[in-house]
Amino acid sequence: MKRFFSVKDVPSIADVVQEALVLKAAPYDHQELGQHKTLGLVFLNPSLRTRLSTQKAAMNLGMNVMVMNMDKDGWALETQDGVVMNGTTVEHIREAAAVMGEYCDILGLRSFPKLKDREEDYSEDLFNKFMKYCGVPVVSLESATRHPLQSLTDMITITEYKKVEKPKVVLAWAPHVKALPQAVPNSFAEWMCKAQEEGLVDFTIAQPMGYELSDEFTAGATISNNLEESLNNADFVYVKNWSSYQEYGEVYGVEDNWMMDNKKLSLTNDAKVMHCLPVRRDLELSSEILDGPNSLVIKEASNRVWAAQVVLKRMLEDLV
Amino acid sequence: MKRFFSVKDVPSIADVVQEALVLKAAPYDHQELGQHKTLGLVFLNPSLRTRLSTQKAAMNLGMNVMVMNMDKDGWALETQDGVVMNGTTVEHIREAAAVMGEYCDILGLRSFPKLKDREEDYSEDLFNKFMKYCGVPVVSLESATRHPLQSLTDMITITEYKKVEKPKVVLAWAPHVKALPQAVPNSFAEWMCKAQEEGLVDFTIAQPMGYELSDEFTAGATISNNLEESLNNADFVYVKNWSSYQEYGEVYGVEDNWMMDNKKLSLTNDAKVMHCLPVRRDLELSSEILDGPNSLVIKEASNRVWAAQVVLKRMLEDLV
Amino acid sequence: MKRFFSVKDVPSIADVVQEALVLKAAPYDHQELGQHKTLGLVFLNPSLRTRLSTQKAAMNLGMNVMVMNMDKDGWALETQDGVVMNGTTVEHIREAAAVMGEYCDILGLRSFPKLKDREEDYSEDLFNKFMKYCGVPVVSLESATRHPLQSLTDMITITEYKKVEKPKVVLAWAPHVKALPQAVPNSFAEWMCKAQEEGLVDFTIAQPMGYELSDEFTAGATISNNLEESLNNADFVYVKNWSSYQEYGEVYGVEDNWMMDNKKLSLTNDAKVMHCLPVRRDLELSSEILDGPNSLVIKEASNRVWAAQVVLKRMLEDLV
Repeated sequence: MKRFFSVKDVPSIADVVQEALVLKAAPYDHQELGQHKTLGLVFLNPSLRTRLSTQKAAMNLGMNVMVMNMDKDGWALETQDGVVMNGTTVEHIREAAAVMGEYCDILGLRSFPKLKDREEDYSEDLFNKFMKYCGVPVVSLESATRHPLQSLTDMITITEYKKVEKPKVVLAWAPHVKALPQAVPNSFAEWMCKAQEEGLVDFTIAQPMGYELSDEFTAGATISNNLEESLNNADFVYVKNWSSYQEYGEVYGVEDNWMMDNKKLSLTNDAKVMHCLPVRRDLELSSEILDGPNSLVIKEASNRVWAAQVVLKRMLEDLV
Repeated sequence: MKRFFSVKDVPSIADVVQEALVLKAAPYDHQELGQHKTLGLVFLNPSLRTRLSTQKAAMNLGMNVMVMNMDKDGWALETQDGVVMNGTTVEHIREAAAVMGEYCDILGLRSFPKLKDREEDYSEDLFNKFMKYCGVPVVSLESATRHPLQSLTDMITITEYKKVEKPKVVLAWAPHVKALPQAVPNSFAEWMCKAQEEGLVDFTIAQPMGYELSDEFTAGATISNNLEESLNNADFVYVKNWSSYQEYGEVYGVEDNWMMDNKKLSLTNDAKVMHCLPVRRDLELSSEILDGPNSLVIKEASNRVWAAQVVLKRMLEDLV
Repeated sequence: MKRFFSVKDVPSIADVVQEALVLKAAPYDHQELGQHKTLGLVFLNPSLRTRLSTQKAAMNLGMNVMVMNMDKDGWALETQDGVVMNGTTVEHIREAAAVMGEYCDILGLRSFPKLKDREEDYSEDLFNKFMKYCGVPVVSLESATRHPLQSLTDMITITEYKKVEKPKVVLAWAPHVKALPQAVPNSFAEWMCKAQEEGLVDFTIAQPMGYELSDEFTAGATISNNLEESLNNADFVYVKNWSSYQEYGEVYGVEDNWMMDNKKLSLTNDAKVMHCLPVRRDLELSSEILDGPNSLVIKEASNRVWAAQVVLKRMLEDLV
């Protein structure tokens, strides 16, 4: 594996999930793979789960880890070619990426969208240039449009907790106070659509009018503006807020109640409830669910380690 | 050991000090204990000595260490239950602590008091919730009311440098320009009171009127408002500023001279002078003392490693 | 080696370069040297290349690494003796350095000049006091007046890519938008002057009037205000901006075109072009050069690892 950026980088979801579960059962079985190998984690934005779980995964594999918090170092990167760099950007991504590639065998990059210009964000220009110029395998720690380690984690968690062969999975929009990226729902949708193709799940997306995700990620999914209807027979409910894709980055008032709570849960097939965290309690998701038996959110966060570990393992295997 | 938060977490001061001194003599004797074990250090406030010494102690024991500086990531934690999280807090401590517990075998937490509301600070609400929800052993890296790694360090240092069986130890208030927490003196007092019970020291506290610490920490100590008298026959003088407990967080002007200097030192039994650092030179403590033969401040800071290491060792031993 | 601060800390440039190249060929040959040894990296200013390459070098040698970003912790250090510390500095360098020396076997320190007071910057007061009080070997990660790891790297790179026995090396001033320190050019000049003495290079400095470096670093170099003339027959061109030493920290407008580009490159002996990075594209150095076959900037950055590794290796060998 040379890059882990979208679901397209994984030939088979079933296979990669199985391999992750084998690693979970025996975390230290491949320490020789990481010997004398260095993972560099570059954060242009803050991170808690991603940072810790990826670091842990790398250490499980015997790797060294170096972390760069470039958001706080004020190390503004230039991404455009052909500009005279007489402004505020201090280094071009061509040099910055290439240099980090010299010091690391694998790089991870986190870079959020600005939510101002859809075309710019969805071009994934920064991420693509970083991958192009660094010269080593790159794992996305969340980019402008996708969060693939989260989605792989989610599929691992669904596989562990499913009670039926082919569970019904509902991605349910939920309210928030801030305008959030579409990266997590985009990514979850593209992974679930592929999982549906592989016969692993039935996938439905429920969101208010105006919050439709881009077709690019949702082809094959059942899409609805009616949350109650969608929850019928659901085995997993994946709760998440996102801002509008159409009116890019906008947040509209929503009349109906879209917060996930026990009343809505009663419409499901005793569904397990998931969320990528951090979650706004009693705004996105009720405390009664989060503190109750149907919540998988902590186990899901815990599985981030095995998603990262299987990706790093595949990259290490392809290094030599 | 499941937690290290106060002196109550240590059955015998004499025993834990002896065990620390054994580790100091052979730092790498227990590397197998830490193999594949991860220590997470969570800083809600800045740290120099605590961060480095605890990291070093963990590495001596063969552990991996992951550091989270949450003060700088703007990762504001919600600690209250039953609030709709539509404000500035981005994650509830229930989730944040539980997730960190999934990635780490032992957690350390530093969290200073706000010095606004005594009841809130002294409830140790944040710390207690963190311990409750993370699900793994927690070592305090300084909480609102205590700094137990510092106090254990101090007892180790007193044990190493005492010239009499049962030395006289004086905790002496000193001036400062800022309103400082009571955590270090509270903690020192509760450790010395217990050490006195064990027959290890004679303990006196000297502070100006209005700077009395809470009884909860000082029961058994000789308490005085007369520094010169208190210093008589002292073997160790522990210099430290703190703000008022009664008029919570206040700093009053003090008429007499409470800075520790050579003139005051001449009243003692050639006492060794201690301070937890950082120290304000020539405000809390004179340069002549700090640069002279009676200062133990650097050796004391050095001993932080062995305090942390004995605590981590006991926690690792109880993990399995 | 007890310190690495200037070229004077290296008896023979030829020897240290050879030793670095041996390490480059076999990076993990000395892992026993670093066992149970800790490197502390203290950054009073931001760093990308220096941080990652020095960390990598230490790990190659089997060392543990602890990083302190003191610029962001607001840990303002007092450096003057005899002042009452009742202001904004929270700790005296006497204590801070001594404590870090207790936790680490070797320390690295980065500290930029303020560019306000030449005498203060060029006294290297902070650096000298840090070395004096920490009690362990110190490697400069760039100080007010020098960046020796960069200069050693540059000499390694010149040695690898030279096509003639004694290449002509030109340090060429280039434009910038900010007032930059003289540390990199000072250091490069003192290393090249010594290399010239050892018969390894011919060294020329070209800068506009008013940008002359201090004699202390340039004795023996050919110095010119004519860039085109200087480039004649050059084998290596080292491009770098710096602010004025005479009118300390000033930046004057420069009439002529001092940006390095292909037209100027055509005056050379097909010279390799170097820069310590970060570089302002099309301001200091043209994109056509940076993206073309004559640029060594990435390979140069890569060599930072071997410069750091040979220095740390020599320090480790002298520890016992």
